[in-house]
Amino acid sequence: MSAINQIVSTSISSSTSTFLGHNNLKNIKPSSVAIPGKINGVVKCVASPSAEKTAYKTKVSRNENLAKLQAGYLFPEIARRRAAHMLKYPDAQVISLGIGDTTEPIPEVITSAMSKRSYALSTVDGYSGYGAEQGEKALFVYLSSQQLRAAIASTYYADLGIEEDDIFVSDGAKSDISRLQVLFGSNVTMAVQDPSYPAYVDSSVILGQTGQFQKDVEKYGNIEYMRCTPENGFFPDLSTVRRTDIIFFCSPNNPTGYAASREQLTRLVQFAKENGSIIVYDSAYAMYVSDDSPRSIFEIPGAKEVALEVSSFSKYAGFTGVRLGWTAIPKDLLYSDGFPLAKDFNRIVCTCFNGASNIAQAGGLACVSAEGIKAMHEVVGFYKENTAIIVDTFESLGFKVYGGKNAPYVWVHFPGRSSWDVFSEILEKTHVVTTPGSGFGPGGEGFVRVSAFGHGENVLEACRRFKQLYK
Amino acid sequence: MSAINQIVSTSISSSTSTFLGHNNLKNIKPSSVAIPGKINGVVKCVASPSAEKTAYKTKVSRNENLAKLQAGYLFPEIARRRAAHMLKYPDAQVISLGIGDTTEPIPEVITSAMSKRSYALSTVDGYSGYGAEQGEKALFVYLSSQQLRAAIASTYYADLGIEEDDIFVSDGAKSDISRLQVLFGSNVTMAVQDPSYPAYVDSSVILGQTGQFQKDVEKYGNIEYMRCTPENGFFPDLSTVRRTDIIFFCSPNNPTGYAASREQLTRLVQFAKENGSIIVYDSAYAMYVSDDSPRSIFEIPGAKEVALEVSSFSKYAGFTGVRLGWTAIPKDLLYSDGFPLAKDFNRIVCTCFNGASNIAQAGGLACVSAEGIKAMHEVVGFYKENTAIIVDTFESLGFKVYGGKNAPYVWVHFPGRSSWDVFSEILEKTHVVTTPGSGFGPGGEGFVRVSAFGHGENVLEACRRFKQLYK
Repeated sequence: MSAINQIVSTSISSSTSTFLGHNNLKNIKPSSVAIPGKINGVVKCVASPSAEKTAYKTKVSRNENLAKLQAGYLFPEIARRRAAHMLKYPDAQVISLGIGDTTEPIPEVITSAMSKRSYALSTVDGYSGYGAEQGEKALFVYLSSQQLRAAIASTYYADLGIEEDDIFVSDGAKSDISRLQVLFGSNVTMAVQDPSYPAYVDSSVILGQTGQFQKDVEKYGNIEYMRCTPENGFFPDLSTVRRTDIIFFCSPNNPTGYAASREQLTRLVQFAKENGSIIVYDSAYAMYVSDDSPRSIFEIPGAKEVALEVSSFSKYAGFTGVRLGWTAIPKDLLYSDGFPLAKDFNRIVCTCFNGASNIAQAGGLACVSAEGIKAMHEVVGFYKENTAIIVDTFESLGFKVYGGKNAPYVWVHFPGRSSWDVFSEILEKTHVVTTPGSGFGPGGEGFVRVSAFGHGENVLEACRRFKQLYK
Repeated sequence: MSAINQIVSTSISSSTSTFLGHNNLKNIKPSSVAIPGKINGVVKCVASPSAEKTAYKTKVSRNENLAKLQAGYLFPEIARRRAAHMLKYPDAQVISLGIGDTTEPIPEVITSAMSKRSYALSTVDGYSGYGAEQGEKALFVYLSSQQLRAAIASTYYADLGIEEDDIFVSDGAKSDISRLQVLFGSNVTMAVQDPSYPAYVDSSVILGQTGQFQKDVEKYGNIEYMRCTPENGFFPDLSTVRRTDIIFFCSPNNPTGYAASREQLTRLVQFAKENGSIIVYDSAYAMYVSDDSPRSIFEIPGAKEVALEVSSFSKYAGFTGVRLGWTAIPKDLLYSDGFPLAKDFNRIVCTCFNGASNIAQAGGLACVSAEGIKAMHEVVGFYKENTAIIVDTFESLGFKVYGGKNAPYVWVHFPGRSSWDVFSEILEKTHVVTTPGSGFGPGGEGFVRVSAFGHGENVLEACRRFKQLYK
């Protein structure tokens, strides 16, 4: 590895560059960001052929599914480019509206619960070891006798028929998405919104559910990409969608920022029921909904027979680093042989996971207390103010802007332009990190996602720079 | 589900009984523990056929690999039986020396670091969101400027050539074992010590690496079971072991408590090298070694070309509930095509995981401070005292006892008897929960594992009861 890449790898917080090989970049169009160590378009950080010849190799074949992946996972790649930019412009004030990382402090009602729980672990009465894999049964006695699974069920699914034992507490939605893929195995077919959060597709590739990447259409074989565009109101035309076993559906959507309406979700549930498909519904941004769009798929009648729901405290309480989420799986969700999906997921959770950190779970219980819910709404409200500022800025510059109303993401249209080019242009000229829409799938080409997660003054400053660049 | 099972499911801390179907028990021999709700050997907690007939079913096939699993994951099953026993004897003082759960408070030097970190998350300067998936780069500034990956490398692998960027911080060894299985995929073959920690085999079954369970030999097809018995000093006779891609090897061993010698591990590394195999070395009990047995596989020359190592703070600092561990993957470990395994694991970690909780990582950094290491050795020393008491007790009763010297587990031989029968006898007559050896594989039949994780007075009381029962 070259010395300069070593510097990059130790200078950024979310990096794959330690293992940055040539194939990490091969599907990314040449950008205007100069990457140190890059000579004539070739990144020099792989072992030289002579060194490889002498190295001992095992006889274990590389997992061919990993080899199908075209680039590094999107967000570490963004972080790597930001780091390269900071090396090039060491004095620039770089503002990150890219990877969707929360920036505001966690409300004290929540951190004090975690702090108390931490201290209690040093006492005989307050100590606890292994919790239940599905979520601790009885949390820190001094705080509350309530159980987190029950509290999540009553907070987010009151009157929706989701019960305590339908809730599986996790270390975050991303981890549970992969555990769900392990549950489904390699023989299922899957559909995603296009564009969509890249963990759905990448985990599907890793589990062997897909074919090779088809460069001409920029899609993996055997995945059904459900195009979501301004023309169809960011809801797929289901009459053209092929039947699949699994349908990943995120609403409010990352990256487009659109929340599906009750009528649209009713059609989605109907579509799944007709096809016997299972919807994996990602509701990680539900608390950002400000109109009457459903907050949960289980608001739709019949959804409990065809859907499960993944969610997270990350974007409500600033828990991106603390790590806490959940998956709700109704007892009515059955495989074709009548076997309950929840029962197998329970086995996965017991075998492949040992529960979320007990300290994070104490924080989760504080999140869903009356005071915690109020505090989370304040956090969400703050980011929604940022969103409005970003929307206003781009609209004032004459751009078509989508999303933002029910989600912390603004989806800005740059018709006819390459997303990576726009990303690079913005980074180079304003020192603001965004996310190229095509990183979320071919349907994102021509768009850039601007995240509202940032300190207020940084968002204002970024918007000033956008106005300078695109005036 | 019957009402009584509902009670069981809500009264225990580590339970699968919410989903306890008939197949959860079908491979467990009839025990003398009466389970409430069990009538004529049939557990009545599955939906009745008439209810199933009317239920909507999706058209998604159940993952056939999940269907191969014979019983619930071992430790929730033990917890379920304990709960059933407590229902039967509500006044009994049940002592758990079963699932290996830590009981002693976490040293204050560690919890105070986690508590401070929790509070800091409410401040503008102390807040952090997404960390690097591989482990946070710069932890809580007020505590230390050291980086956890570097601190783990220098603490556990000084002079062994394992570097900061070879360390992947995790939420525990169990989670990383499954992520490693996802890395390897379904086309590899694997070997395990027999008996062994059940997560290796179960995760292999789930990923589709195995054939069906063969009831006559109590083994899954396509797994190489390396028998470890008193006769071979609990180290497999490698001349009879078939070549596999992956070799899971745990030392000091769970459940036998044996630590492999330097000479034995040298033979293991040689065996892997000749076969081109990859050793997944589980060193979660390394700090319990009290003789000159290696603490890490990387102490063996050449191991970096054929081995990776999984480890954990769970049994050192009482982190079973806090959740923190790591996996060390040397850069020299290559697939047959020369591709570095670490690079693909990095992709798995970035796609399927979002890093361990930042609060737990602050605790981890305190663990590997000078004061923390001293405190962890005290915790380990306490459990080792328990171990000595248990060993003495069974030896005084005339039993052949193994392990205990380098591990917190005592492996007691009951020749000619069924492990589950002995487990049930001990539970029924002494109210002490142990773990039946056959739960770790067919090679564990005739043994019972007694864990040294317990309060001192409870271990003494359990030993008094053992003496009463087996005098």
